Order: sequence, then structure tokens, then C-alpha cells
Amino acid sequence: MRVLIVLAHPERQSLTAALNQVVLKELEAEGHEVRTSDLYAIGWKSNIDRHDFPRLPNSQPLRVASASRHGYEETHGLTEDVRAEQDKLLWADTVVFQFPLWWFAMPAILKGWVDRVFSCGFAYGVGEHNDKRWGDRYGEGVFAGKRALLVVTTGGWAEHYSARGINGPVDDLLFPINHGILFYTGFDVLPPFVAYRVDRLDETEFHALADKLRERIRTIAVTNPISYRMQNGGDYIVPSMVLRDDIQSANPLGFQLHQI
Amino acid sequence: MRVLIVLAHPERQSLTAALNQVVLKELEAEGHEVRTSDLYAIGWKSNIDRHDFPRLPNSQPLRVASASRHGYEETHGLTEDVRAEQDKLLWADTVVFQFPLWWFAMPAILKGWVDRVFSCGFAYGVGEHNDKRWGDRYGEGVFAGKRALLVVTTGGWAEHYSARGINGPVDDLLFPINHGILFYTGFDVLPPFVAYRVDRLDETEFHALADKLRERIRTIAVTNPISYRMQNGGDYIVPSMVLRDDIQSANPLGFQLHQI
Repeated sequence: MRVLIVLAHPERQSLTAALNQVVLKELEAEGHEVRTSDLYAIGWKSNIDRHDFPRLPNSQPLRVASASRHGYEETHGLTEDVRAEQDKLLWADTVVFQFPLWWFAMPAILKGWVDRVFSCGFAYGVGEHNDKRWGDRYGEGVFAGKRALLVVTTGGWAEHYSARGINGPVDDLLFPINHGILFYTGFDVLPPFVAYRVDRLDETEFHALADKLRERIRTIAVTNPISYRMQNGGDYIVPSMVLRDDIQSANPLGFQLHQI
Repeated sequence: MRVLIVLAHPERQSLTAALNQVVLKELEAEGHEVRTSDLYAIGWKSNIDRHDFPRLPNSQPLRVASASRHGYEETHGLTEDVRAEQDKLLWADTVVFQFPLWWFAMPAILKGWVDRVFSCGFAYGVGEHNDKRWGDRYGEGVFAGKRALLVVTTGGWAEHYSARGINGPVDDLLFPINHGILFYTGFDVLPPFVAYRVDRLDETEFHALADKLRERIRTIAVTNPISYRMQNGGDYIVPSMVLRDDIQSANPLGFQLHQI
């Protein structure tokens, strides 16, 4: 396999960084090719702005989606740092994202990686729109056939992220990433690996956690992805993209509807 | 009222910026005091790193939560840009966030504002933990008594964000922000104002949208907030913070459980 690791933590002596070494070593031990985008180490620019589109005339207002589409289509229309990440994504057949959950979402540096690298015409705004299909998204798209896995750390308790815990279920909190970013662009999204109470881990607990993570990495090519519904598979009505009335679930509302 | 507007869009000729002017003018017409944090205009730094903690010794690894707590407590322990935003938040009794929904979440620049400004000891990690309460969060905290409102733009269709739409319900997509960031830190969170298909608006549609937004702003002090459950009000078991068994909902799973 060719694996891209996207790492977002400012400190090499953090648990996220230690788990990154666990992932890296396990992948190398299994003979996989690995490349890493260590966003803090490369000083990743997070804020999308007109400097992202070197060929956008100064006289023209920045319309992000259209500037992004034109930039993506033109030679030197995007910056080199963005192209390099797009190339790594195309090279990889599996992408592992390693980051701490800050305020129930990605750190800004990783969100800025998505905002800037997932260009229009590349990661969204692609495919035919007609009465049968609504573009290549949610199960189709540039990353179709690739796998993605989140490896997340949080200071919070597992119970607080459980089905009835106060933070909300962790799978729902990660839905905007797993479904809205990764499945949207075509990835097969694996169930996330989440480490809780990470500020309190002793050495024994770290080793147990590392063992679990190694097992997830060893099985990364065969683990069943989350069974999100394909957009263009017949479950959704075009163009409202609302689930057909006859599709029901134990849960009448919420994100679980979008899984089989 | 004293209103802080936090604005996150790179282009002054955008719909988000136009709606910002609508909000600003309406607030001023009503006689409110308004301050704005225009994050792109001030060149906001998004990526939290050790430069955020000027008094953290170089020899010491960056542990974000503890560095944040010490920085917050010490004179010159945080950077001036972060202190200025904290002061604005303390000054305001209402905060309006205006941003485009990019990949179902805040733009990186706004996420970076939260990551950096919501320090430990200020916005989280506060209050007593005992067998009756689990700190001041979810309905209590530094921003208790203040109101918050999201004003969001998206290129997508309203139907795609409806209860059974493919993106997931917009209220659930915004839950990590409204519940996880704003209610967590004590805000009364108003139902969000969401504008759809913003790339296609003609002038008539813009005026209709602006009218709706003006109405929301005019009623901002009296609109009922989202009825999230208080953490320490008896609905959750301490310390697992799981909802009591007898609390049921039409929806057995998902975020709606956390509303009354």
C-alpha cells in the first residue's frame, strides 16, 4: 500500500506524535510505502485567501469556489504547497489523519489543509448533474477506491462521547469530517480510532492503546468501511437529495439515517 | 446591547460581507454598540503553537491545555491578539458569528480564533468538580448570560440540509459549534440563520434574505435560545455525564437528545 499520513499537532513530545510513530513503524514493518504531511513541521498556511490563486487578477473579487476551479484547471493557478498535497493524495491509496480533537473538530491547521487542498474541480464540483445523479460525490469522486482513517486524541472521557453522553456520540461529532469531507470526495471511510482521557495515560495504558492502534493499522486494508449510503445508488431523490420515504431507521432523525 | 461581530471571509465583495453590513447597519440603527473582529482584515493567526505562550520555557514541551491555563493566568502569558479578543468577548453581551460553511464547518481562520482565544481557565477547565457538578460547562461558564448567533452562508441547497437530506440536518452539522463551543462556554445559543444556494442569488432574492436577517437581528434580545439541557441541572449522571435512563426522546440516538 501507499499510505499518506496527515499529522496535525504542534508538539513532537505529544501523545498524537507518539501515536504517529506507532502508525509509521507499523506501516513500515508491514512493508508499505509511507509519506507524511506534518502540517506544523512544514508551516502549513491555513487561511485561504487570494494568494492561493496566483493568476486571479487583482481587479477581480475573490469568489472562492470559482477561483478554486480556475486555479485548479490552470498551469500555476494554485500554489506549489497545495499542488504538492494534491499529488500526495493522488499517489496514496490510503490516508491516515492524526490529530487532537479541539472543540469537537479538527485543529485549524488541518481544517485549513482541507479548505485549501480540496479544490473545486478536484474534490468537489465534479461529475455530471442530471435527473439520475447529482455529480460525483458521497461515495464517488476523485478519491474513490482509496481508504481513509481518522486517528483522534481527546482529553475527554469516553462516557461523555457515548450514545447518550453529554458531548454527543463521537461518531456523530466526526460525521461532518467522515461523511462530509471524506465520503463526499469518494473515500471508503474506516471507523475512527479514538483515544480518550489522553492527559492521564500512564505507561501501561499507553502501551495498551498503542497495541490497539497497531491492530487497526495491520488490518487497515481489510476493515469494513462505515456503510454510508451512496448518493447516486437510488436511496436519494434527485435533485432534492432527500432520502426516499420508504427508507426508515430506528432513528427518525439524525446522521444515522445515512448509513445502511 | 453591546454586540461583538466575528467575521470570517476573505472577500469584501462576498455575500457574507454584504450580510455583515446588513447586520451592522441594523444594530447601529437600533442604537446598539458594535465592535467587529474581521479576522481576515486583522490577519488573524490560526495555528496554535508555542508562540502563543511567550512565557513557556523553550526547554519545556508544549502541552496545549496546561500551557494555555498557565498563559491565561500569568501577566503576558498570552499574546496581545488573543487577550484583545478575550476582552472583546467579556465586553459583549451578544456575539454574532458570520462565516461561510466550508466543508460543513467553520473556515480555518475562525476555528483558529476559537482554538487560540478560548483558553483553558477562561473558556474551559473551569468550575468545581464534585459528585453534583462537573465544572462550569454546558449552560454555565465564562459567557453565561450572553447570547450567540451564527449567520452562515452555504452554496448548497436547503433540501440537502433538511431532516432527511443527504448532507445531514443543518442543526446537527452545527451542533459541534452551537453546543460544543458556544453552549459549552455558557452562551444562550440562538437558532442559526442559514442562507442557502448563495452563489445563485439574484437581487430580489438578496433583498428578501437581507429582510429576514434584519428581522432576526431586531429580535436578537428576545428570541428563545435553543433549549439545550444544562449539564448540572440533574439530567446527566455525574461523572459519566450520560443522560438519565428515564430521559427519552422520539429519537433514540443523536444530538436531539440534548435538547428539551
